Amino acid sequence: MVSKERIKDPKEGLENFGKDIVKQLEKIQNPDMSLPVRNLSNIYFDDKSKLIMLGDKVSHRTYLNVAHTRKFMQTVMVASGCKKLIQQGVTTSIRDLFYNMKHTIPKYNEETFETQEESDPLIEDIEASLNTLRENLHLHAEQKGSLVGPITIREPSFDTENDCTKMGASGYGIPSICEPETVQFRDCKAEFVLIVEKDAIWQRLNEDRFWKKHNCLVMTGKGQPDRGTRRMINRLHNELKLPIYVCADADVWGFYIYSVIKQGSINLSFVSDRLGTPQAKYLGLTTQDVAKFSIPKNVTIKLNEGDKKRAQELLNYVWFKKKDWENEIKHMLQVGYKLELEALSSKDIRFITEKYLPQKIKEEDFLP
Amino acid sequence: MVSKERIKDPKEGLENFGKDIVKQLEKIQNPDMSLPVRNLSNIYFDDKSKLIMLGDKVSHRTYLNVAHTRKFMQTVMVASGCKKLIQQGVTTSIRDLFYNMKHTIPKYNEETFETQEESDPLIEDIEASLNTLRENLHLHAEQKGSLVGPITIREPSFDTENDCTKMGASGYGIPSICEPETVQFRDCKAEFVLIVEKDAIWQRLNEDRFWKKHNCLVMTGKGQPDRGTRRMINRLHNELKLPIYVCADADVWGFYIYSVIKQGSINLSFVSDRLGTPQAKYLGLTTQDVAKFSIPKNVTIKLNEGDKKRAQELLNYVWFKKKDWENEIKHMLQVGYKLELEALSSKDIRFITEKYLPQKIKEEDFLP
Repeated sequence: MVSKERIKDPKEGLENFGKDIVKQLEKIQNPDMSLPVRNLSNIYFDDKSKLIMLGDKVSHRTYLNVAHTRKFMQTVMVASGCKKLIQQGVTTSIRDLFYNMKHTIPKYNEETFETQEESDPLIEDIEASLNTLRENLHLHAEQKGSLVGPITIREPSFDTENDCTKMGASGYGIPSICEPETVQFRDCKAEFVLIVEKDAIWQRLNEDRFWKKHNCLVMTGKGQPDRGTRRMINRLHNELKLPIYVCADADVWGFYIYSVIKQGSINLSFVSDRLGTPQAKYLGLTTQDVAKFSIPKNVTIKLNEGDKKRAQELLNYVWFKKKDWENEIKHMLQVGYKLELEALSSKDIRFITEKYLPQKIKEEDFLP
Repeated sequence: MVSKERIKDPKEGLENFGKDIVKQLEKIQNPDMSLPVRNLSNIYFDDKSKLIMLGDKVSHRTYLNVAHTRKFMQTVMVASGCKKLIQQGVTTSIRDLFYNMKHTIPKYNEETFETQEESDPLIEDIEASLNTLRENLHLHAEQKGSLVGPITIREPSFDTENDCTKMGASGYGIPSICEPETVQFRDCKAEFVLIVEKDAIWQRLNEDRFWKKHNCLVMTGKGQPDRGTRRMINRLHNELKLPIYVCADADVWGFYIYSVIKQGSINLSFVSDRLGTPQAKYLGLTTQDVAKFSIPKNVTIKLNEGDKKRAQELLNYVWFKKKDWENEIKHMLQVGYKLELEALSSKDIRFITEKYLPQKIKEEDFLP
């Protein structure tokens, strides 16, 4: 069942998944499904694509193994639920799917699912084994990201076309499902994409019309970007050849956000090629910027034990093993502080718009 | 300094606040500022307006009281920071303002502010004592709410005008600052406003074009609505005379969300008239709907001790002392369960769009 090629038609994939089980039953075999192992033991950093990728290890889930029976049934239910969504032409949230599947099994006083924690990982199992995306199974999460700048976005299923320079204070809300069938690009005049970690900074840049002066798109995922926002970044780079610059806090969390945008994540390694953008560059903030931009020391924040431990972990990830990143992380540990983007406001509310970002971009002062 | 009338010009209010202190200094008096007390001891439910209102109690903050000195200085800094924002014609986030004010006091190794927890309540102090809104002091929070439906919204400061039926999957992002100067209504054809607690339900209703079939606006605050969303609800009702229906989970948190939309909150009682909408009605979900709509019992969730305690608290709030609400809360305690809106999906993904909401609205089956 584990597919190496991305399947074209998820409905067909789901049907084959079901047929495979029926076939085994007809042969009076113990029904068995193979699923890719999705943890640190089965991922690797692919040096060619520069992405975190899923390895070949598979695990088996069999019906007549009491430790697997419940999960086996639940996995089949998730697959069947997704097939229904595709057939009905509706999308829904992963929470909604859980409620839709939850019921008491007739004659037994047992629930199909107790909590959503049971169903969410099974959705990822189905995604990984079918080599498809949750979005193609008609499942979405909460809408989160925003975008502003010179591009027009068409959404055929809503029959809308929006010029993203004309969406007001909140900008264009990046849909949770951001696939080529549902979100299409028109008339992009931007020369690059700037991604900022926080909504407050995004609002500052929108108010100052940074996107107009620098002819770019400005996006935010409001913290760790959701899948829709990461897919949008990936597509803006791949389809429109736009350079991607990421601007996050100078702390382990900000660096991690960048790393997920760039090479994907361990948990979702099976979709790194869709969600990761290895060509992304880190514009800042760094602890080295404190000296470079004469940022007052009193707006820095002392590292705590968690920060120090996590910094060591980052140093051990193969994708952070680059001279400039090692320098920055070691510098952070040496000076013993971190700082947030808002710290730049201690110089002037518009310092980030008028000095910091333009200078960084002009001098191409990026981390790889 | 405590103003009973809402001030017209917040800049003037801030200047008078400063002049008052200077005057006291010139008279060689101990500088003193009076601030409204903002807690349960100084709020009341106003039976005429049906809003939670701030009482008359004031506290004094004096400079030559060592317990007050630091806070006195900080309050003056917040007032001065806001005046600068208004003068520069920029808005910023409350976090940004904190960083902008944070610095080491020359000659003393002491910080003006240690954490944002020190500055946020002082912003509310200034708001309450000037009887203005944070938004008028040019401060915003993170953008949160969404809206879809037949209304056009003009934002003069961004020179944009958007037909909210044509914004795609994410709809119109309700700005954090939603005052008549920045957000203006044009061509509203809607007959009512439906507010749903959760984004997932909002997405369901948008995908099903509920707003088109029922000629209404559909909004969500994604959990507890932010101030921008509450202000939008208040203005849609007061300026356009639209009925407001609220749809939340059948649990103490959902009921509380409704209560905040309707009569304001204790903490922000000084702006209840701007943020509260006493004419709002509660459409559902209720625990009594389980029988009414034959919702399977297995999608209900058992009440925990926290739920039971909070339900008792709700029963004690004067604004929940209405027969129908007492019945519902007591019914919840009696059956011992709560349920989320997604529970309706156990019947059918589109049950909420096609059956539940239309029937509730048609039969005007609301709680007060």
